Parts: sequence; C-alpha cells; structure tokens
Amino acid sequence: MAAPVNSPRGMRDFLPADKARREHALGVIRGVYRAHGFDEIETPVVEDYARLHAGLGGDNEKLSFSILKRGIKPEALAAAVEAGDPEQLADLGLRFDLTVPLARFYASHRAELPPVFRSIQIGPVWRAERPQKGRYRQFVQADIDVIGESGIIAEAELITATSQVLAELGLKDCVIRVNDRRILFGLLEHCGFAAEEQAGALITIDKLDKIGVEGVAAELAETNSGAAAAMRGILEGVDAALAAGIPVTREAIAAVLPAGAAEAGIDSLVAIGEALAGGLPEGVELRFDPTLVRGMGYYTGTIFEIAHPGSGSSVGGGGRYDGMIGRFLGQDVPAVGFSIGFERVVDLIELDGSTGPESLALVVDAEAKLEDLMALKRELVAAGNRVRIEKRQKNMKTLLARLVEEGFAKVANVQPGVSDLSELSWRELGE
Amino acid sequence: MAAPVNSPRGMRDFLPADKARREHALGVIRGVYRAHGFDEIETPVVEDYARLHAGLGGDNEKLSFSILKRGIKPEALAAAVEAGDPEQLADLGLRFDLTVPLARFYASHRAELPPVFRSIQIGPVWRAERPQKGRYRQFVQADIDVIGESGIIAEAELITATSQVLAELGLKDCVIRVNDRRILFGLLEHCGFAAEEQAGALITIDKLDKIGVEGVAAELAETNSGAAAAMRGILEGVDAALAAGIPVTREAIAAVLPAGAAEAGIDSLVAIGEALAGGLPEGVELRFDPTLVRGMGYYTGTIFEIAHPGSGSSVGGGGRYDGMIGRFLGQDVPAVGFSIGFERVVDLIELDGSTGPESLALVVDAEAKLEDLMALKRELVAAGNRVRIEKRQKNMKTLLARLVEEGFAKVANVQPGVSDLSELSWRELGE
Repeated sequence: MAAPVNSPRGMRDFLPADKARREHALGVIRGVYRAHGFDEIETPVVEDYARLHAGLGGDNEKLSFSILKRGIKPEALAAAVEAGDPEQLADLGLRFDLTVPLARFYASHRAELPPVFRSIQIGPVWRAERPQKGRYRQFVQADIDVIGESGIIAEAELITATSQVLAELGLKDCVIRVNDRRILFGLLEHCGFAAEEQAGALITIDKLDKIGVEGVAAELAETNSGAAAAMRGILEGVDAALAAGIPVTREAIAAVLPAGAAEAGIDSLVAIGEALAGGLPEGVELRFDPTLVRGMGYYTGTIFEIAHPGSGSSVGGGGRYDGMIGRFLGQDVPAVGFSIGFERVVDLIELDGSTGPESLALVVDAEAKLEDLMALKRELVAAGNRVRIEKRQKNMKTLLARLVEEGFAKVANVQPGVSDLSELSWRELGE
Repeated sequence: MAAPVNSPRGMRDFLPADKARREHALGVIRGVYRAHGFDEIETPVVEDYARLHAGLGGDNEKLSFSILKRGIKPEALAAAVEAGDPEQLADLGLRFDLTVPLARFYASHRAELPPVFRSIQIGPVWRAERPQKGRYRQFVQADIDVIGESGIIAEAELITATSQVLAELGLKDCVIRVNDRRILFGLLEHCGFAAEEQAGALITIDKLDKIGVEGVAAELAETNSGAAAAMRGILEGVDAALAAGIPVTREAIAAVLPAGAAEAGIDSLVAIGEALAGGLPEGVELRFDPTLVRGMGYYTGTIFEIAHPGSGSSVGGGGRYDGMIGRFLGQDVPAVGFSIGFERVVDLIELDGSTGPESLALVVDAEAKLEDLMALKRELVAAGNRVRIEKRQKNMKTLLARLVEEGFAKVANVQPGVSDLSELSWRELGE
C-alpha cells in the first residue's frame, strides 16, 4: 500500500530541478510558436461530461476522469443504481486531450477569431490508464493547430515552427516522417483491398515496425490473400528504402510506390517537401514514410510524426483532420494540427546551466543585521542576479554541496556589520 | 439554458489577448520570485479525497469537486445509496487551494529539500461556488512560502519579493497592511474577552470596514459588554489613525495601542518594519493595521494583505501558519506564505505593446510560391520578429483593422515572384 503522503497514483510531483527544466521547455515552445504567428489560448481543464463522450476522443473517452455532480439528490442516486450506471452521477470530466476542447472553443468563439486561426494550446490532460514507465495519468500536451486553411501552407507552417522548437530545445537527429492518408488508402485500393477491409488493413500495417513485412503480410492474408501478396511486394521495396531514408521529392516517392496509385496524396506531399526544402533547421530532417499510419481515425490527409533516437516512441505527431473541428459547429472546417509529446521531449533536453541569471548565495550568521542583509540582497537582485540567503550551518560542506547541486555559481559570507556589496568577497562554487 | 458550446459554468475560455496578458503576468511573477531565491514546484491538480477533507481547508473543503472512482462495482453504488452519501463513490478531488498540496508535497519530499525551503507554486484551483462577477470556479493562485524558518527573515523576504512583483507588473499605489495574530489576541485579552470569546470577537472585528466601529462595538457587546466598551475605545483611536496610515515603527504602533498589550507581536512587527525600511519599491507602502484579521483560522503570527485602489477587495495576502505544513508529517514546522490574487492582479495590469518582438504581417496572393514565402517568413523570424502570413482578401480594411487590434506593427505585400526580403516594402500599421 502506498505511503499516505504520496501524490495520487500515476500523477507526479515536480521538485525544483524538474520544474525548472519543464518551464524552460515551455518557454521555448511558447516563444517559437508565437514568433511563427501562432496565438495561445486556454480552456478550462474541465468540460461537460456529454461533450467528452461525443465520439471525438476515440478510446480516450473510456479513460476519462468524471466529476461527481454537486448536491446529488437521493432520487438521482437511486436512478443511477437502477440503471447500473454510476456515470449518471457525473456532469463534468477532466479533458483527455486538447482537441475536443479546441473544437468546443472554436464553436463558441469563432466570430471573435481570424478566418485562419493558428492556435497554441499547452496544458495538462488526464487519462485513467494503468501507470507505467513513461506513461502518466496527468501529463502535458503542447499542440498547435491551423484552423480554416485547406491549403498545404498550413502543413508547411506547422512543420517549420515545430522543427524550430526541436532545434531550440537542442534535440539533434530528429526525423519528421510524413505520409498522407490518401496515399495509404490509394495503395490499399491499388492492391485490391475492398473498402470495408481497408480500416482493418491500416491497423495491421501500423504494426510494421513490431512484426515486420512477413508478419504484416501474414496478417493481411487472413482478410484478403491476393491483396496481401500485392502489398507484400510494395512493402518489401519500401522497407529497404526506409532504412536509407526517403526524401520527400517526386522522384524518391515514385521510386517506392507503384505508378498511378494515390496521385492526390503524392502531389500534396511533394508540394510540402518543396515548400520546406532547405528550410528546416540543422538536426531536423523530413522523410517520406508510406507505412506511417497514426492511430486516430479522424485524419483525412497529411500525417506526420517525429522520431528521435533517444526515445523508443514518437516525440510528437499530427496531421490533417478536416472533418472534426467543425463538429460542434455543425459544418466542416479544414484543420491540421501538430502535437509535441511534451513529457518525452522534456526527458531528452538538457538544461544549459549558463542560461538565466547568475545564482549567488549569501551565507549569514544568526547575528547578522536583517536590514543590512535585505539591502545586500536587494542590490544583487536589482543587478540581475538570482540570490539565496542561507544560514551558516555546522557542516558547511553539506551546504556548499547542495548549493552546487542547485546551480549556484558563487557564495559569499556576510559578516555581521557588513552592509556594502564592496565588502563581500565571492568564492566560485563547483571548482 | 446555456448554449451547448459554452465552457462549463463559472469556468472561462481565454482568447489570445487575454491569454497573452496572463502569460506576461505569470512570467513576471516567476522571474521575480526566482531572482529572490525561491524555487518553483508543481503538484498534480488532483489529490486524494481524504486528504482534501482532512480539516486543513476550512470552508473550502465543502466546495471541492470530487472525482468518481473508476469501475465502480454495484455493491459500492448500493452502499453509497444506503449511506445516503454519493461522496463514497469519490476517491480523488480537484484541489481547492495550493496549501493542502504543499503540506502533502513537503511531507513526501522533505528529505530532498533544503532545510529552509522557499517554494513557488502557481496553478489553477477549483471551488464549486456560485459564480459571480470576479468569482470563478477555476482560477489561478500564485503562492510563495518559506518553510522551516521561524525567524522574521522569512516575512521580510516574502514581502520584499512580492512588492517587487507588484512594482514590475506596474501596479502603483499598493499598500501592504500588516498585523500579527498575537497583537489581536493580546488586545482581546487586554480588553477582557475570555479565551472562548476571542475567536468570535475576531470574526466581528473583521467586519470593521463594512459595519464601522459602532457596528463592531454593538456586536461585541452581545458577547461581553464590558470588554466591548474597552475595545470600542481602542478602535476609535485606531480608526482615525488608519485614515492617515500607521507606519510600522515602534512609536507609531505605541501611539495607537494600549501600553503593555501584545508585546511579542509588536516586537516582531517592528523588526519586520526595520528590515524593510527604505527597501520597498516605489508605489508599495507598508502600513500597520491592528484591525486586519484575515479569515483563516490557521494563522499564528504575522498576517498581511495587499490593498490596491483599483480593486474593492485585497489583491493578495498571507501570513505565518506554523502549525499546518507539518500536519501530514506529524510534527510542527514553521511556515509563512504570501499568495497573490492572480485573477484580480491580471485585471489591473496593462500590457505594454512595446514589450516582446515586433509583429509583422505578410499579405500574400493565392498564387504566391510557397517555398519563397516560407523562406521570407523564416528569415524574419530568425531576425527576432513575430511573423504572421495573411491571405489577401477582398476587404483589406477589415484585415488591416484586425491586424492592428492583434498588435501587429507593420505589414508588407508579397508579390508573386518575390523571394528576397529587400524586395518587400513595409507599411506601418495603426497610423
């Protein structure tokens, strides 16, 4: 049984060093996205229960935390028992993603927003999953979305801005894999899968990195053996090409796909590749991956995912989902989004100690005059430093070691009677 | 009935302009507190139900939102009906303040924290109150606390740092009113209130600004008419002195309080006044107010509250609460905290348009070459600007007016074929 003072299961406390790293990353994400013309919005962490269960959230809907109605009447309690459904007692819930709230926000505020709305949303979401390494019940998502733009300029802006975020966070060797749902469906059709077989076939192809071409072909053959054989031929060629990386150019794409399949998707991807040519920061590459599926059923066109050698799973992804944002509005609205896997990214970055103000510690005796001490601290802060007052303790070694660990650069002893900065002598820490 | 796309009752959406103001304020608060040697932590927004109802939250415990257990069995539902208590179905709840989570965090992580821990906590809290103007069901609190320090250096650091926050946010004419619970109890005893009458008397004195000296005296007389008459004499003198403002010096305090009452509290306040003398930023004043009570029962010593002419109620406050942080640890730990009323403060500040990067808009035709456009944008962003691409529209007046409203400073038309920054001609907006 858990100790009584732990945080709730699967939810984390952040100590100062972790919190500083998270705030640094959030600052970079906000700053870069704002510079690229996106605008941050915020919605409540809570949404109406009915809205969270309107079918937009896929399997995540089942993982949502529900909030008990206040002041429940005995009749309501009895009705819930009769129905065998405790959820009848809930009127609100914690959001499980930022997309459902975005759709609700857009429906509510469309008149106040520009025709093409580039949104930033950063905040925690909650899912009642079984906690495990790297999977939490409260975690932060960082999303950008372009709403109201059907052209690929939206994709180009999303990928450019997110690449810049990755570069500024110091993540080297990122690969952004792109594909298009229309290419996937085009290939399935080309191979001979019937319309009703295609969704299942996508789920199988999505397992390629786990079960390999053999495994995928075998599983597809259970549904349609002729189509599976055709797909096997394509996948074998693709698999070999993927190892080297497929540039997002017409030639490279034509070399791995059968002629005549999925022209619309290919044209669109090639145009994105051209728009981004030479424009991605160092350490970020764009690659075509015709086996990229991404799980969510709502994607309609371009899809993309960020791979990084330091993380076993993707560190971000997204795509075009033209049918969804308009759901609460009752009309179709083009939309494309990119979500950074904040918790994975924050594990990959290293905080450069040289950023931020210089951290100084003043070590004082109990008899130090408080007025003088506050004046010294004030002056040092006003000069742009971060300043911590520490009381002299018996074991100074312990104190100094802790200050080094906390990132303090210099320490000075404040003798009683000292009231002027010039009287302090500073000693470098960590040497 | 509310429109189906509104945010939940009493909880707000923030559009870009509001969100930018909030993030600006959060940045100032974080930056100043960090510079003053405080460290930010974060806890989950959810805590165990039992912990939220352990008696530390006063009336707020009744206002908490509870989270339904997942996968409730029929027996549990039946047991809740039998007990007539739907809350038996809840295992978690949304926090109603940041103090209960801080006490839990401290108990959990004490071994990893410095002996004197200066914490920053900024985040939303939830209370199921009846929403009204300026009162929301989700709102942000910004707290700093010094844990493990019994000396008044803690108060001096809290008040100095918070004053600096107010000044950097541009809030002029702030008054920080200070008092000490020991002075209040000393006065009550001096007047002749019995120990068991004192808590009630404090509640009455807390109404002074609403019902005046007459009203307070009349209400106190219902409990103890002799003591009420003595208190009336003190309050009349205090009330007159408060209008002019009472400096936090021994002389000024002695002039309004009867000799011999509450020496410990007065000594402590005078020392705080001396430590801060001459050290508060322009626009922030420290004043003694012997009628300041602050509602929460857990305060044990110094108490303080920020008044600002732009707000009817206080924009922040706090005090020493030595008994509480150690509750989950099973031992007393000295602690003092200062909480900024973030929602009130954010309404008082004005965003200076000159801060942040220059905002530039590129107006483009549909036939613009995307690759060139992305290159232009990239160069402008790399030069430190915020850049927005806008499509040319029939009514350019509407577009330009919106850009002015959104804070864009300059606009340039991108003719097809333009691929070099030198070919753009910029026009100032808002002139």
